[in-house]
Amino acid sequence: MDLDPAEPWAVREGPLDLSQLERTESLLALSNGRLGVRGGLDEGAPEGAPGTYLSGAYEVWPMTHPEYSYGYPRVQDRIVGVPDATRVELFVEGERFDVRTGELHEHDRTLDLRSGTLRRTVRWTSPTGVTVRIRSERLVPLEHPRLMAVDYRVKVLDAPHDRADQGIHVEVRSAAVASEELHDPVTQARRTGGSLRQRTDGSGQAIAVVVEHDVTGPADTAVRTHALPQRVVTTADTRLSVGSELRVVKCAALGWADKDARADLLDELRADLDVGVRAGWEGLAAEQRRVVGEFWEHADVRVEGDEDLQQAVRFALFHVLQATAQAADRGIPAKGLTGTGYDGHTFWDTEVFVLPMLNHVRPAAAAAALRWRHAMLPAARERAAELGLAGATFPWRTITGRECSGYWPAGTAAVHLNADIADAAVRHLAATGDEELAREVVTDLVVETARTWGVLGREDDEGRFHVDGVTGPDEYSALVDDNAYTNLMAQANLRAALDLVRRFPDRAAALGVDDEEVATWERLADAVHVPRAADGMHLPHARSGAHLRWDFEGTSPQQYPLADHFPYFSLYRRQVAKQVDLVLAMHLRPDAFTPEEKRRAFDYCEGVTVRDSSLSASTQAVVAAEVGHLGLAEDYVHEAAFVDLHDLRDSTADGLHIASLAGAWSALVAGYGGMRDADGRLAFTPRLPAGLTELCFRTLHRGSCLEVRITRQEATYTVVSGGPVDTCHHGEEFTVEQGSPRTLRIEPLPEQPRPAQPKGRDPRELRRR
Amino acid sequence: MDLDPAEPWAVREGPLDLSQLERTESLLALSNGRLGVRGGLDEGAPEGAPGTYLSGAYEVWPMTHPEYSYGYPRVQDRIVGVPDATRVELFVEGERFDVRTGELHEHDRTLDLRSGTLRRTVRWTSPTGVTVRIRSERLVPLEHPRLMAVDYRVKVLDAPHDRADQGIHVEVRSAAVASEELHDPVTQARRTGGSLRQRTDGSGQAIAVVVEHDVTGPADTAVRTHALPQRVVTTADTRLSVGSELRVVKCAALGWADKDARADLLDELRADLDVGVRAGWEGLAAEQRRVVGEFWEHADVRVEGDEDLQQAVRFALFHVLQATAQAADRGIPAKGLTGTGYDGHTFWDTEVFVLPMLNHVRPAAAAAALRWRHAMLPAARERAAELGLAGATFPWRTITGRECSGYWPAGTAAVHLNADIADAAVRHLAATGDEELAREVVTDLVVETARTWGVLGREDDEGRFHVDGVTGPDEYSALVDDNAYTNLMAQANLRAALDLVRRFPDRAAALGVDDEEVATWERLADAVHVPRAADGMHLPHARSGAHLRWDFEGTSPQQYPLADHFPYFSLYRRQVAKQVDLVLAMHLRPDAFTPEEKRRAFDYCEGVTVRDSSLSASTQAVVAAEVGHLGLAEDYVHEAAFVDLHDLRDSTADGLHIASLAGAWSALVAGYGGMRDADGRLAFTPRLPAGLTELCFRTLHRGSCLEVRITRQEATYTVVSGGPVDTCHHGEEFTVEQGSPRTLRIEPLPEQPRPAQPKGRDPRELRRR
Repeated sequence: MDLDPAEPWAVREGPLDLSQLERTESLLALSNGRLGVRGGLDEGAPEGAPGTYLSGAYEVWPMTHPEYSYGYPRVQDRIVGVPDATRVELFVEGERFDVRTGELHEHDRTLDLRSGTLRRTVRWTSPTGVTVRIRSERLVPLEHPRLMAVDYRVKVLDAPHDRADQGIHVEVRSAAVASEELHDPVTQARRTGGSLRQRTDGSGQAIAVVVEHDVTGPADTAVRTHALPQRVVTTADTRLSVGSELRVVKCAALGWADKDARADLLDELRADLDVGVRAGWEGLAAEQRRVVGEFWEHADVRVEGDEDLQQAVRFALFHVLQATAQAADRGIPAKGLTGTGYDGHTFWDTEVFVLPMLNHVRPAAAAAALRWRHAMLPAARERAAELGLAGATFPWRTITGRECSGYWPAGTAAVHLNADIADAAVRHLAATGDEELAREVVTDLVVETARTWGVLGREDDEGRFHVDGVTGPDEYSALVDDNAYTNLMAQANLRAALDLVRRFPDRAAALGVDDEEVATWERLADAVHVPRAADGMHLPHARSGAHLRWDFEGTSPQQYPLADHFPYFSLYRRQVAKQVDLVLAMHLRPDAFTPEEKRRAFDYCEGVTVRDSSLSASTQAVVAAEVGHLGLAEDYVHEAAFVDLHDLRDSTADGLHIASLAGAWSALVAGYGGMRDADGRLAFTPRLPAGLTELCFRTLHRGSCLEVRITRQEATYTVVSGGPVDTCHHGEEFTVEQGSPRTLRIEPLPEQPRPAQPKGRDPRELRRR
Repeated sequence: MDLDPAEPWAVREGPLDLSQLERTESLLALSNGRLGVRGGLDEGAPEGAPGTYLSGAYEVWPMTHPEYSYGYPRVQDRIVGVPDATRVELFVEGERFDVRTGELHEHDRTLDLRSGTLRRTVRWTSPTGVTVRIRSERLVPLEHPRLMAVDYRVKVLDAPHDRADQGIHVEVRSAAVASEELHDPVTQARRTGGSLRQRTDGSGQAIAVVVEHDVTGPADTAVRTHALPQRVVTTADTRLSVGSELRVVKCAALGWADKDARADLLDELRADLDVGVRAGWEGLAAEQRRVVGEFWEHADVRVEGDEDLQQAVRFALFHVLQATAQAADRGIPAKGLTGTGYDGHTFWDTEVFVLPMLNHVRPAAAAAALRWRHAMLPAARERAAELGLAGATFPWRTITGRECSGYWPAGTAAVHLNADIADAAVRHLAATGDEELAREVVTDLVVETARTWGVLGREDDEGRFHVDGVTGPDEYSALVDDNAYTNLMAQANLRAALDLVRRFPDRAAALGVDDEEVATWERLADAVHVPRAADGMHLPHARSGAHLRWDFEGTSPQQYPLADHFPYFSLYRRQVAKQVDLVLAMHLRPDAFTPEEKRRAFDYCEGVTVRDSSLSASTQAVVAAEVGHLGLAEDYVHEAAFVDLHDLRDSTADGLHIASLAGAWSALVAGYGGMRDADGRLAFTPRLPAGLTELCFRTLHRGSCLEVRITRQEATYTVVSGGPVDTCHHGEEFTVEQGSPRTLRIEPLPEQPRPAQPKGRDPRELRRR
């Protein structure tokens, strides 16, 4: 959408552009991770593709394959739209308020990144000449998973004299509207609210909303509620004199229940609703501001010298907060709850791109995500058995824990996911020292995933350990032997398992780990093979060096993304990467490469990576910064942070790219800040690009909060709270304590020659100057 | 089915087994390649899965993919059942003849391999005590693509005295019945016949049948025809005294027409029908016997010492004749027209397994099959353009020429098909010297397929030519680099193109071939890389040597076929072959291996090939015989020949395995006979296995017919017709002329140690002793 000049703490829509409604619905979405509301207009028309979603509310569809083969899923789960409780329609003198009629003098919508609300201000003259101001504000409380609230106020500013005298007839109709994707609506009404209940088909869920209203207006304001077949409508009806106002505060509770619990759902929701009603709008809004403030306390990343980036980063972090605040019961979908893209499925994105941020700014949310994976272990064990693997293998895309991927070469075969989950769990442990989670969750996850590698891989005659026929992160190659990323992550997975079974022998025993298994892990971990070219350069996989390079010169800009214009058959046979793969290994396994090896391999990868995936730029930023391409890193930071504000992938309408948004944090913190957290040690190699004068962020580490402030010349490390922190600045180890910040010099690094990207695929210049 | 003792020229069903009806319907199917009729009972009940099929009559279905990707087909074609004109119901004293009622004294069905008919003899006593004999015979004329005929006779043998006196009421109802898979039947009746017309939905075809009857019986026999909504029924109604007979000869013409020609379809069919009616049953039967006799003249393979094999081979060859006799307008489906297996699609089977036989025994049918491929060139060129390839790329499975494969790693990626088509065309040319076909068909096919390799492959720094990321014949590996079979066939494809553009410069010019293209083909052909292990042994593909061997010891017999119990993900990562791949290369490119190389690679391949495909045993027989495993070859010959008579793949019910049946010819002729036809030269290395005393076959070569008679000690080469033939016996070149047979000694070869197959996958002992 057209953005107003960058504001540091808000994203404000420019003039209303009806062709952009689907995009703005995503950008202005509110969510707490359990309940998500796209940023549609209150009155529901015009609309883009509005929707309200509940984490875990899904429908089941048959998955049909033209040629079925063993192990293919037979059904798939898809997120489903639930009843819409945002709807507030306004009638002025009987005329429906619609931005397309009458005269719209002012229309402003602002996502306030500190209040955690979406505000709208409208000044409109109706076709019959009555001018009103509408102020609405919407919030989805981060602390109350099932609630949402709307504060809707309408004031008469002006009216033709003849009618102003007798008062202007104003009617506000606040509704909860049945979802067309659900069945059998049952509605009930009380005077100021009611309920609407529906059900899914295949998944057997009940889904319901209860609403309550608090109306403030002239004394004669009439309030009543009608239960219609498809909606429950509460109407506030009055006559307003010029200058007076009608206010309707709506509070709604939405939720779903599985078969067993359906009977109790409405009662539960009413209890939830009561909490919101008691707090009232003011109470909920105050609490929301406090919770968001606490988030920023740890999560804010301050960038000086680039206002657009500052705004974009806060927008990004705010949406990651929204996607993860209350996500405990289900996975974090790739789009959060901002749209139906990817069917509401959760992928590896969570563990590789979102958890690294949460581990350091909101570890409780990371723990919840890991607990969800742990709860899915039984399904993952079953899947491993079905596929002839050992331990547990997690689904590539899922809502309920079962595999919903319809293309196995880029689904089932992407077994790095198992190591990714283990890695995120181990990093969480390192960052938090949470022994309880280690015992209850992490050990199981790490051991069960480690068990897959022995079956997946093989030892050769020289004792090297290989993994054949798997798909790494890059989706433009598949079923390759010795994917470097997979092998290195498998190695980390095995080593973490070794560490954890030693630390938690009781859990190890419960999991049936014996000495022989431990010895096998040890042997395999030490023997992991990582492919290299004849000249020693690391390669993405065993055969990638041999393959022909994609004909980038012969590919036009209109032929990207390549997968929309070329068959996988052509892509897989060529050196071309959709996204980071080996480069991601450099970020997550920095110890496995020398600086020189990273430089060479990074430059090679840059030459074949087309970034047809949003899961790329942030990691490219991190490694570019490390190997000395700060200018390039800057471009990738922008690409990651602006992915949705600038709709860089032309798909923001389907929902936000939560992983890319979280990646913006990594791009800054692990990129410019050079933060690494391998082996539980926190280290920094800060270095600012030309475009920034200062970067400041905070990171939680084992209960302490460390602030890092970076300028062109130096970095200052301050313990904001908690005990002393052992850390490292450009290789120099030191300890910093509360009250004694440490400032250390940064030696300027000569910029390395910028590596070339495929023709036309260099990162776009995204900054407004 | 239970077979009666092997008869040399017939397959006779044992006692009627109602649980086997689907199988016998396939085994006893009649076809001429355009019209196919499964061997159901005349009266239509009980039934297995009867059906009548027309080559090219198909329906279109949407092909839905859980995750669509560029280049996937959106629709698929499927063969469709057409109206059934076989139906003849009998009523005796008002009681319907049904093998499950009354008393069945005798029931015999015989597929006569010389008359080319299916005969049935029944002796049955009705529940009311009338004994009748039914003799029916059915034929689908090999010379008349749209006709079929039934000769149905019923004779009263015995009846209770009280009723015999007044004559037994016998009614024969001969029907053409609408297909449930088609729409909108329209029926018409004349006195002795009528018509039934239906239509397909998506493919827009009209499909119709016209029938006519010739009834012979007592003078008062009444004949009339009713046009009912779903059928046209001609009834012959009479009273028979004991010993007298009613005969109904039905002749039917079936056909389809595309949108443009629908109006004329019935007229055309009536003209076809007239030909049949004029000939009458006797005329059609005599002609059929003559045509089948001419086929055997060239095609018969006589094996002495193994009666079961003798029967099986003739059964096999007869069905290949049936599948290919009139197949000119469409491809030859994998199952012929004997069932709906594989949706009636044509695969590479035709060119690799069927044409090698046809080229030498019925070259006109081979030419027709090649002309069909040629007619599909426009679609193949379009597909190549869609996939970013050059020239033409043929569909993996098709009816109309468009790709109907729903799994691209084993469809689109199996580009060896292009070289296979070129190879079959070149072999045809070598065998026939058909310059006209070369100019009109072969050059186009070979040049357009040769053009794909330059785009598919790559030259490495040492100038070697590789093809990456393709799937060879073996379907338990996919998307491999340097599949040996593919590379060697590509080489042959390129060399054939070079040869043909030199011989037919005008065609080459018309195809736009220039000197640069020719130079490229030459360079690539000479540089083709064939992968080998470190010790020099040939490998199926670049990485196969590295992969782990499948855990055959840990696999139970119930887990075969493996693809029904393990995911491709597991299979592709391991050394395990569904079917011949490298071994097929040894058969088709014998020049590319030394005898010792063949021996080593064959033994290796035996150890990992599980024969989960019917497209394997025949080739294993050929190469086993060549490398000195005659006992093993014998087992594979049996497996190929008995595939359907013994229902070895438990899928004969879906239709016969035409490629395996044709493969039986190759197994004998190229296996025991050692016939090779590379480069247009005919050579033999005959050698009989212990189980045979004599093998005799004929082969057409450039207009001459050469008979080869092989005993344990010697081989006799006789030119039966045509000019002298240059050939070769165990390396000794010689010329044989009409009237001067040559007899040459065969040196005994010490049997090589039999290589081991995967546990439990050694060929089954199939011979009855």
